[in-house]
Amino acid sequence: MSQILNEVLNANAEYAAHFDKGDLALPPGRKFAILTCMDARLDPAKYAGLSEGDAHVIRNAGGRASDDAIRSLVISHKLLGTQEWFVVHHTDCGMEFFTDKIMGDLLNDSLHTAAVGENGWHNVQTEGGSAEGKYIDWLTIEDQTQSIVDDVRRIRQHSLVAKDIAIYGYLYDVKTGKLIEIPAATAAGKPL
Amino acid sequence: MSQILNEVLNANAEYAAHFDKGDLALPPGRKFAILTCMDARLDPAKYAGLSEGDAHVIRNAGGRASDDAIRSLVISHKLLGTQEWFVVHHTDCGMEFFTDKIMGDLLNDSLHTAAVGENGWHNVQTEGGSAEGKYIDWLTIEDQTQSIVDDVRRIRQHSLVAKDIAIYGYLYDVKTGKLIEIPAATAAGKPL
Repeated sequence: MSQILNEVLNANAEYAAHFDKGDLALPPGRKFAILTCMDARLDPAKYAGLSEGDAHVIRNAGGRASDDAIRSLVISHKLLGTQEWFVVHHTDCGMEFFTDKIMGDLLNDSLHTAAVGENGWHNVQTEGGSAEGKYIDWLTIEDQTQSIVDDVRRIRQHSLVAKDIAIYGYLYDVKTGKLIEIPAATAAGKPL
Repeated sequence: MSQILNEVLNANAEYAAHFDKGDLALPPGRKFAILTCMDARLDPAKYAGLSEGDAHVIRNAGGRASDDAIRSLVISHKLLGTQEWFVVHHTDCGMEFFTDKIMGDLLNDSLHTAAVGENGWHNVQTEGGSAEGKYIDWLTIEDQTQSIVDDVRRIRQHSLVAKDIAIYGYLYDVKTGKLIEIPAATAAGKPL
């Protein structure tokens, strides 16, 4: 068994030994959802004050309003009753540090982890690549404020999103732990 | 300001006031990622023992291996160095309680939150629907074990996934807080 697997299972056994949340209902008790980045430094339960049972949390690379994030949000509202949604991107996001072209070229040469230096990204190993990466929109971020405005607007304007849901746009600062409102995004996310 | 927004911002101010994680590196320190469901009852940081900076967390409705989840996982390995991935679905998942047909029909009549009773789902309000929901694969789950096997296998076989990544399949029990291995999934996720 790998060290990580062992650590995860030990941590889970500890969690389960003190578990007292077995009676929670399926729908989120506080009727809201957070869409945020997968970044390891972000813990939305901690930065937004969530206990088990409170809110849906949707996470992907960048916290982007992808079709799949919208699938999740629509299920969250339509079947499980959330009425307010937060879109939270963050400072120092990995999605700002590459382009579709860079990612496609790196993957074309090798699927193994690349390294980044003063001259940008480079492959350490160069076997076993795939051209498939050139056909994917990686949803990179050029401007950390604009991406929040764009994503809130995309959700607001989506044909399957109910008009009375409030959508807020925030930037999480990884240096301070603070949520900073992006007023243009929150304005774009107002109920119609 | 809504009550939820006020509560989230107050909780965040409290978190930031005691924040001491401002120096964490961008790549996950423990080099792994978890793909799991958005369900409010799940807190992967708690159930798997994560601190800020440890691991990527990807979440969507069902914890499914959607194209967007694979986008995130490939970025996680290729650019940020994760080497082991967990796919964690859970008991009592909302994705087991509807079909594409049910969701498409509900949305066609109304975007507002539906209710569920003895006779299944029904709309409470019936204005402002959209037929767009009929064109989406909602990635519902028929069998909570099979979905984990299917998703691990899809990731394992994806052309952009490096062959030496280990992928583990687990079911989280919302009644006990325990992670239960799905051996067929973990077997399907072995490095090639």
